[in-house]
Amino acid sequence: MIGRDDISVAAERIGTYVRRTPVVELTADLWLKLELVQHTGSFKPRGMFNRVLASDVPAAGLTVASGGNAGLAVAFVGRALGHAVEVFVPAATPAVKVERLRDYGADVTLTGADYAEALVASETHAAETGALFVHAYDQPDVVAGQGTLGREMAEQVPGADTVLVSVGGGGLIGGIAAWYAGAVRVVGVEPTGCPTLHAAREAGMPVDVRTEGVARDSLGARRLGAIAWEHVAAGHISDSVLVDDEAIVAARRWLWQEARVATEPGTAAAIAALRAGAYKPARGETVVVVICGANADPSDLG
Amino acid sequence: MIGRDDISVAAERIGTYVRRTPVVELTADLWLKLELVQHTGSFKPRGMFNRVLASDVPAAGLTVASGGNAGLAVAFVGRALGHAVEVFVPAATPAVKVERLRDYGADVTLTGADYAEALVASETHAAETGALFVHAYDQPDVVAGQGTLGREMAEQVPGADTVLVSVGGGGLIGGIAAWYAGAVRVVGVEPTGCPTLHAAREAGMPVDVRTEGVARDSLGARRLGAIAWEHVAAGHISDSVLVDDEAIVAARRWLWQEARVATEPGTAAAIAALRAGAYKPARGETVVVVICGANADPSDLG
Repeated sequence: MIGRDDISVAAERIGTYVRRTPVVELTADLWLKLELVQHTGSFKPRGMFNRVLASDVPAAGLTVASGGNAGLAVAFVGRALGHAVEVFVPAATPAVKVERLRDYGADVTLTGADYAEALVASETHAAETGALFVHAYDQPDVVAGQGTLGREMAEQVPGADTVLVSVGGGGLIGGIAAWYAGAVRVVGVEPTGCPTLHAAREAGMPVDVRTEGVARDSLGARRLGAIAWEHVAAGHISDSVLVDDEAIVAARRWLWQEARVATEPGTAAAIAALRAGAYKPARGETVVVVICGANADPSDLG
Repeated sequence: MIGRDDISVAAERIGTYVRRTPVVELTADLWLKLELVQHTGSFKPRGMFNRVLASDVPAAGLTVASGGNAGLAVAFVGRALGHAVEVFVPAATPAVKVERLRDYGADVTLTGADYAEALVASETHAAETGALFVHAYDQPDVVAGQGTLGREMAEQVPGADTVLVSVGGGGLIGGIAAWYAGAVRVVGVEPTGCPTLHAAREAGMPVDVRTEGVARDSLGARRLGAIAWEHVAAGHISDSVLVDDEAIVAARRWLWQEARVATEPGTAAAIAALRAGAYKPARGETVVVVICGANADPSDLG
């Protein structure tokens, strides 16, 4: 299981390739970790830099299956480190997402009906060419890299009692939980339409879920990763709560109105847990909400 | 002239009525002071809280002439402290701006053809009712309050060589310059369409300018304030540079693409100075750019 040592090594390794993102105390005892200002607009480069810098990268470069934040992060890492990047995305991926990947210099292959098929294509490419396969959320070096966010946050808000974090495949919450290791309450927040953590806790193991709703593009993993699950089993993740799409949309608007922070819906889920009462802090409880990404069109916030 | 003592008194006075806003190192030696997460979406509440908390407020409450950031800030302060607020705005002010003021609980009077006439109406209201008149940028307590931003920034980026800040009436740059008092280079950035500082330096005194262009709503003061001018005369403001509207629009887009920070055009001017080369840092020079507001529709960033 990943631990603090792995995360400290990751932090040293990725160094200034990533930004140390700031925190702000929004109201008394409520902090935001503003990870949305990270390169590529999400936390993902932390884990992707760690995975790539910890590996011997062959001439064939890197490959990943993702038209979303993971794909952007790997494309960014490849450009920063001088590696070729081959991204596999489903055939129906919107042109704007493909363009963003190509803007970072990645080669993009549109293939298959869904991410499961794109994932197979990426793994096949890795097997055939020797390219380094980067998983979006379920490799130890990826999760340890995401854990550097928890390490920073622990320095920045030493009095935190509780951390709220949105959950998709569990790479971020896994890394954060690995850092805190039970020292603070780590609560996962999921849309009712993408309940990987909730379903895993109910079933006693990660299971496939259907994914739908406004946050599907960033939180729509098919099932919780095995690494995140280890931290659930170890008691490092205290609870998971669900929020519906209406609450997510309202929380996203509220955050813009209140603090001029424009997030993606998946990120707003963590705020929605507070706004909609899915998580109710005790009096005097210090809560940090991870604002983990902003790759969404802000037009509807106007 | 305002000095550090006034600013420290202001910081103590306004306390947690305002947010301590964070900084982030965007690239090596380039920092952003993320004041856009301040209450009401701009730095203005710092000065307005200080002005009001330093005064005996009569039953008639507060009055200000501004449909922009200053008006919002006074409305916010009035609501927070339980004072009535009467805001005077020109008759042609867009309904959306009037609504935002009313959302904060202010009474809004639409009157006159321009801000000069709204200002007269606000001063007349103060004289007739005894209401406390709050100037948008040119009262000592207002400028000392804005100076708390400089005080925070000096703590957060102790190695700063240079601060870039957008200039309208000069309340913010005056306060920041008062704090640093020559210890770091304070550079004002203005749109070519709103050159109050530039014109004052050329004329040797504040003079009226015509205001136009994309940043007019936040930087379109008629002339530099007398208090800001004192700090120019004292050598606390090192330089002023101009940027055109095209550079402002491009810088605003760049900041969204690069760091998911959605600003108003007036704020983006300070970034434009770097992007367009109007200010060229030396190698190793540490620069802080004040991201002072975000009261603009983000629709065009999508």
